Amino acid sequence: MIGKKKKKKRKTGLPPGTPVYTGEYLVGSADITAIRYNADKITEQNADNPTALTHSMPSRGISWYDVRGLNDVQAVEKLGQQFKIHPLALEDILDVHQRPKWEEYDSGIFTTTRALSFDDATLEVKTEQIGIFLGTDFVISFQEDSNDLFPAIRDRLHRQKGRLRQRGADYLAYSLLDHIVDQYYLVLDKIDDAIDDFEQAVLTDPERADKRKVYHLKRQLTEIRRTVAPMREAVNKFILTDSTFIRPATVIFARDLHDHILQITDIIENQRDTLSSLFDLYHSELGQKANHVMKTLTIVSTIFIPLTFIVGVYGTNFDHLPELHWKYAYWGMWLIMAAIAVMLLIYFKIKKWL
Amino acid sequence: MIGKKKKKKRKTGLPPGTPVYTGEYLVGSADITAIRYNADKITEQNADNPTALTHSMPSRGISWYDVRGLNDVQAVEKLGQQFKIHPLALEDILDVHQRPKWEEYDSGIFTTTRALSFDDATLEVKTEQIGIFLGTDFVISFQEDSNDLFPAIRDRLHRQKGRLRQRGADYLAYSLLDHIVDQYYLVLDKIDDAIDDFEQAVLTDPERADKRKVYHLKRQLTEIRRTVAPMREAVNKFILTDSTFIRPATVIFARDLHDHILQITDIIENQRDTLSSLFDLYHSELGQKANHVMKTLTIVSTIFIPLTFIVGVYGTNFDHLPELHWKYAYWGMWLIMAAIAVMLLIYFKIKKWL
Amino acid sequence: MIGKKKKKKRKTGLPPGTPVYTGEYLVGSADITAIRYNADKITEQNADNPTALTHSMPSRGISWYDVRGLNDVQAVEKLGQQFKIHPLALEDILDVHQRPKWEEYDSGIFTTTRALSFDDATLEVKTEQIGIFLGTDFVISFQEDSNDLFPAIRDRLHRQKGRLRQRGADYLAYSLLDHIVDQYYLVLDKIDDAIDDFEQAVLTDPERADKRKVYHLKRQLTEIRRTVAPMREAVNKFILTDSTFIRPATVIFARDLHDHILQITDIIENQRDTLSSLFDLYHSELGQKANHVMKTLTIVSTIFIPLTFIVGVYGTNFDHLPELHWKYAYWGMWLIMAAIAVMLLIYFKIKKWL
Amino acid sequence: MIGKKKKKKRKTGLPPGTPVYTGEYLVGSADITAIRYNADKITEQNADNPTALTHSMPSRGISWYDVRGLNDVQAVEKLGQQFKIHPLALEDILDVHQRPKWEEYDSGIFTTTRALSFDDATLEVKTEQIGIFLGTDFVISFQEDSNDLFPAIRDRLHRQKGRLRQRGADYLAYSLLDHIVDQYYLVLDKIDDAIDDFEQAVLTDPERADKRKVYHLKRQLTEIRRTVAPMREAVNKFILTDSTFIRPATVIFARDLHDHILQITDIIENQRDTLSSLFDLYHSELGQKANHVMKTLTIVSTIFIPLTFIVGVYGTNFDHLPELHWKYAYWGMWLIMAAIAVMLLIYFKIKKWL
Amino acid sequence: MIGKKKKKKRKTGLPPGTPVYTGEYLVGSADITAIRYNADKITEQNADNPTALTHSMPSRGISWYDVRGLNDVQAVEKLGQQFKIHPLALEDILDVHQRPKWEEYDSGIFTTTRALSFDDATLEVKTEQIGIFLGTDFVISFQEDSNDLFPAIRDRLHRQKGRLRQRGADYLAYSLLDHIVDQYYLVLDKIDDAIDDFEQAVLTDPERADKRKVYHLKRQLTEIRRTVAPMREAVNKFILTDSTFIRPATVIFARDLHDHILQITDIIENQRDTLSSLFDLYHSELGQKANHVMKTLTIVSTIFIPLTFIVGVYGTNFDHLPELHWKYAYWGMWLIMAAIAVMLLIYFKIKKWL
Repeated sequence: MIGKKKKKKRKTGLPPGTPVYTGEYLVGSADITAIRYNADKITEQNADNPTALTHSMPSRGISWYDVRGLNDVQAVEKLGQQFKIHPLALEDILDVHQRPKWEEYDSGIFTTTRALSFDDATLEVKTEQIGIFLGTDFVISFQEDSNDLFPAIRDRLHRQKGRLRQRGADYLAYSLLDHIVDQYYLVLDKIDDAIDDFEQAVLTDPERADKRKVYHLKRQLTEIRRTVAPMREAVNKFILTDSTFIRPATVIFARDLHDHILQITDIIENQRDTLSSLFDLYHSELGQKANHVMKTLTIVSTIFIPLTFIVGVYGTNFDHLPELHWKYAYWGMWLIMAAIAVMLLIYFKIKKWL
Repeated sequence: MIGKKKKKKRKTGLPPGTPVYTGEYLVGSADITAIRYNADKITEQNADNPTALTHSMPSRGISWYDVRGLNDVQAVEKLGQQFKIHPLALEDILDVHQRPKWEEYDSGIFTTTRALSFDDATLEVKTEQIGIFLGTDFVISFQEDSNDLFPAIRDRLHRQKGRLRQRGADYLAYSLLDHIVDQYYLVLDKIDDAIDDFEQAVLTDPERADKRKVYHLKRQLTEIRRTVAPMREAVNKFILTDSTFIRPATVIFARDLHDHILQITDIIENQRDTLSSLFDLYHSELGQKANHVMKTLTIVSTIFIPLTFIVGVYGTNFDHLPELHWKYAYWGMWLIMAAIAVMLLIYFKIKKWL
Repeated sequence: MIGKKKKKKRKTGLPPGTPVYTGEYLVGSADITAIRYNADKITEQNADNPTALTHSMPSRGISWYDVRGLNDVQAVEKLGQQFKIHPLALEDILDVHQRPKWEEYDSGIFTTTRALSFDDATLEVKTEQIGIFLGTDFVISFQEDSNDLFPAIRDRLHRQKGRLRQRGADYLAYSLLDHIVDQYYLVLDKIDDAIDDFEQAVLTDPERADKRKVYHLKRQLTEIRRTVAPMREAVNKFILTDSTFIRPATVIFARDLHDHILQITDIIENQRDTLSSLFDLYHSELGQKANHVMKTLTIVSTIFIPLTFIVGVYGTNFDHLPELHWKYAYWGMWLIMAAIAVMLLIYFKIKKWL
Repeated sequence: MIGKKKKKKRKTGLPPGTPVYTGEYLVGSADITAIRYNADKITEQNADNPTALTHSMPSRGISWYDVRGLNDVQAVEKLGQQFKIHPLALEDILDVHQRPKWEEYDSGIFTTTRALSFDDATLEVKTEQIGIFLGTDFVISFQEDSNDLFPAIRDRLHRQKGRLRQRGADYLAYSLLDHIVDQYYLVLDKIDDAIDDFEQAVLTDPERADKRKVYHLKRQLTEIRRTVAPMREAVNKFILTDSTFIRPATVIFARDLHDHILQITDIIENQRDTLSSLFDLYHSELGQKANHVMKTLTIVSTIFIPLTFIVGVYGTNFDHLPELHWKYAYWGMWLIMAAIAVMLLIYFKIKKWL
Repeated sequence: MIGKKKKKKRKTGLPPGTPVYTGEYLVGSADITAIRYNADKITEQNADNPTALTHSMPSRGISWYDVRGLNDVQAVEKLGQQFKIHPLALEDILDVHQRPKWEEYDSGIFTTTRALSFDDATLEVKTEQIGIFLGTDFVISFQEDSNDLFPAIRDRLHRQKGRLRQRGADYLAYSLLDHIVDQYYLVLDKIDDAIDDFEQAVLTDPERADKRKVYHLKRQLTEIRRTVAPMREAVNKFILTDSTFIRPATVIFARDLHDHILQITDIIENQRDTLSSLFDLYHSELGQKANHVMKTLTIVSTIFIPLTFIVGVYGTNFDHLPELHWKYAYWGMWLIMAAIAVMLLIYFKIKKWL
């Protein structure tokens, strides 16, 4: 929230296309991991500056530059110049509040997406913008902070001689996107757990259920949906692309990715639905409890208020109050009161209040 | 739920296209039933391994391999290699949490769908993923567990010399889909019964109606809708296909299938609507009951509280309280109190509270 | 409802295209009315069997076979064979729970629709499926039971030498559809009357208004909408048809029919909207009544509970209670109590509770 | 409402295309105003019959026939024959419950729309159907009753030598439509005023706010929306027309008209939204008032009920009740009661009920 | 609001295309700032009349006329004649209640949009219509009042020799639009702050939360959405344009603008969602408070009403009431009452009311 506000205040007034970092990560310089590989060879080098990367490209090889730390605007700009990234794309990489998008430029394809993670303590979804630029034989990925999202991909590149090493840069870009989308399931599973907890609470003890959690989870889902919805459009452009940077064989995989995003959308809608139904049920349960309280009050009051009136009558100090002097008047009063109480109880029984 | 979570945890980090079984069925090896038939002849053989299938194909015949038990990943992979099933399709067969889909590959058409069944005891909808792979002259169907869904189809193949035996593999694939969709009506009928029960309860004794059932049924309908909605898209691709694996004559039947799915969608929306209206009615009934309770309390209190006050006045012990010594004071008090009670009753009558 | 369940149980397991009657009408054989006419001549013959129809066709004439009683499956099948009706169409004619549809076959055009009627006593909408098959020079209409829907059309054919006699079979088919759609207005008018009744009740005496009627009417509207929505698609196919069975001059009339269906859809949405708004108003009125009851209770209680406390104080039997012995204590107590009551009334006046 | 019902009852059973007046206006014959003009000359003639119109057409002139009073079916039919209006169009002119539409025939373009007016006394929207038929050099407008909608247009024709006189018949037809749509703004402004009144009432004294007005205004908006929504389609057909009756230069103006209708749709949705939000706010305010009433009751009861109990204890007549004989017992009782009252008040303060 | 009503009353009856100022800004003559520039040179001149602008255009230069004060209709008309602005566009410039639109004329492209600002004191969104007319080498912008929106753009033109000076008039027009859209973020941030305030209030002390603010903010969002929604269409036309006034390179920037508008739409929907959820939470919190109040009343009443009845019994003055004479009767009564109170407290504990 705070970040968003800061951003807009900083950027307003600047010409479009000016690269300005709008996030909150403020540690010194960027971490860049460069991997160059083909089906046979693979080398990896780390640096904090694009010019420090010296290892050579294998023949017919592919390079992957993974940049972590967008506050180092200079490093990003240097890479931008080196790989001819369009100024608008460069701006979008650094402006970390972008809508996920898929843009095709002459020099390559640029896509931004958001990685999600879930903080178990605060039940909050955190999002990080990931920019990916794909050229003929290279992929550049931009992560906002130094927290690395892609060690699993790196492992797969190193360990296996499988599909990832044999296919082109477009397949690597797809793998990165697929890896990010896979994390969404984990986040939604966490939210599922939280919903299950709330459901359990509503079904066992609705008054102790923390309804603020529902509100909180709804906001998280709104946030996730806001991220996922434009990704559907972005991945759709991936599928429909006629760009030369994407091989037709990779498009089949993009269709799989699209299916995942549709499924995630389904799950989100499902969860929103469930939260709404649960909230209705919760209120219904509370309402029924309140009705029960009300009925208890009414039953007790309706029985005792008339009885208290009767004893009040015989508590008066009139000189001439004949009943007071009858021998069995006291027991007669009890009899009458018992009769009234029984009649009222029968009435409540008929009314199904008991 | 549990299955879904397990799955995503297991699969995350693996490269796309890796065939991993993500369900919960864990019994030993697969059951495979192979039927080979043409209009004249039909043979059937059972095995737990694709290589054990030895009966020969009749001329211009069609083969149907029905695999039950997806935990036997090897058997599935062997079939996959034998019939050139694309790795992504193979992964989708084994990943039993797929969105229903229709994918056309060079080697054939792959479709996944979900069979529904209804557990009368728990009122829960169970879903099972069914994968169907259609080639030129063969159909392979994959059922998750050993519970057989297609004995009726097998019977029809054996008994009749009708359409099913005379038409191609595409018609067989259609028949399997049609059979699965027919089961949906049964499930929705069961839900209809449960809704009717709830309606009856609301109309006769709303306080005894179990509103959790509404919540439960809503969730079941959400689940079914989540299954049926993507099937509409899948069957639409079936209708619009220009694949050579599908004969034009079969497309007319696919249109019929599409109509069924639209009708099922209508029924689901109808039932959701009805549940919402019923829930509104239920709350309205409860609210009216609560109002009635409230009115009873108010009437009794409003009548007796002033009367109790009056008798309280004459219960005081003041030395100088002239009324106490009047001869007919006691009866006068009763008269006044009766007048007050009658006036209040008239007031309530006018207010239509009685 | 019952019919729907029976149907699905009966049909499941049968191969698609098997003609089975799924309705509830069980009287013996069918009634068939055959009319053959051209602009000059018209003959009419009744039979319970298609082969019993012997009157000859006038030159350039048109035949209309009106079949009533679908339980006579044989008669329907015979007509099907005679006029080359596709097996799927034949199945749809007999399966009386079809979604309205428009299907073009080589031998003719098949459309199903639903006729609506309204039972004033139960406020229930009844639907009957009408199948119409249109060939080059003939129309076959299938009504489920012996209750005749088309006497008005027959009258127009006999009496006038107007458009209906001069135009082709397609215009006759359109006239049948138009006649069915015209009935919808009557049903919606009846529902309008019922809504007006409820509105009147809510505006005059909301507590006596029967809210179950709202629920009931909503369900009826859901039912009608479920019928009308697919008819829009069906009639749209009629408009966009390039079938040779439909003359271009008839398409202009189909556009008119389409307009009627759109208008009916508008009316349904309008009525649903009105019912929702009415239900909100109804609850609002009831809530305000409940608030009024609550306020009455609060005013009476808040005034008399403190007063009763005061008289209680002077009802105590303490040996040393000086006030009891004062000469004007009793009158003083009344004064104080009157002051309290007046102050509370002023407070309520300020709070606008009175 | 009544009109609608009458209409459908009258028309059902008649063949389509039969011209029957379905409205309620019943005064004798029609008023016809015929204006013939070109850029230089203009003549105007009034008659109650088309054949009585004798003034001659100026060279390259345009005729405008404005018919008021549709109950004079003969006059309408005569015009229909004279200008070759299609029977369906003629029927639509007289059937005053049409959905706004745009139909292109060989002899000209026919459009119906609805003029709106607002009755300040009953806060009710009244609608009148206007039919417009456009030929090469003539426009015929049909108003239901003798109440004239177009004096402003007539004035513009007479007074100015501007665009209206110089352009063709299509521009005149556009001007009529534009004039009708302009009236919508006036009606919506009136509804805006009524909403503002209700808003003011809710914000100052919600209990006095008349919630039935909300219901009433919602219905009016539903009515207007039902009129405007199909006009969007109709005007869209105007824009996309390739009819020779419409000059391309006029289409630019139609786009402007379309914009107006979109804006009106926006305003309607806006107003509906506002009414819903206002209704929520209104209920929220009432609910808060009810809570306040409840709290008052609870505070008074919770304080005085225990105190009354205590004085009741010392009102008992036990022979052995030691406290009664203590010297300062009475004052001690007051002390204890005061302490209880203060403690409860502090408790309420903490609970923020005070 | 008032402005809108005035407008429609003034314009109704006038022929379309008549330029009339419909706003409320009434100061004398217009302020016109004319800037002429190319990549090398830039001159700026101020005047209150278009004819007073005398500085010459540099070769291959671009002119930007910024008009502030639309009440000076003559100045606007003069510019309109000079640059051949279509009468309808001219009317739209002056009619400041237009829907944002994008219209392509022969003489140039005309677009209207609305600038938003937020009044922190009243929490009200203010909108101002901005008209932009783009020709081959000039841009004319029309601001309603003298309050200048574009000083930042002017600064950029003067200071930098960057993209803005090097690109064409279309890029200048884009920059103006982009600048306006950037302001939307600021307004939404302000609304976000207000929502956060309300959220804080609901979570800490719901009864003190001002629910009218929610209503007010919802209306503001409705207002903004009404502005933004048609801008999406307008910018979409910008992207899809094949007009020669727009260079292909500028379209990429328009896509960026489109993304911003989509993001703004997302934020608006997000905020509306949040407000709705917050309102639900708010009501839920209030309801729970009311339940708590209710329970307190019930507990106190249910305990003390029976006890008061008991002491009432022994306050009666019967001659024959044996218990009164027992030695430990008084203490026994206390014991019984204590037992009743304890039992009730246990009952409440079990019911979880305590």
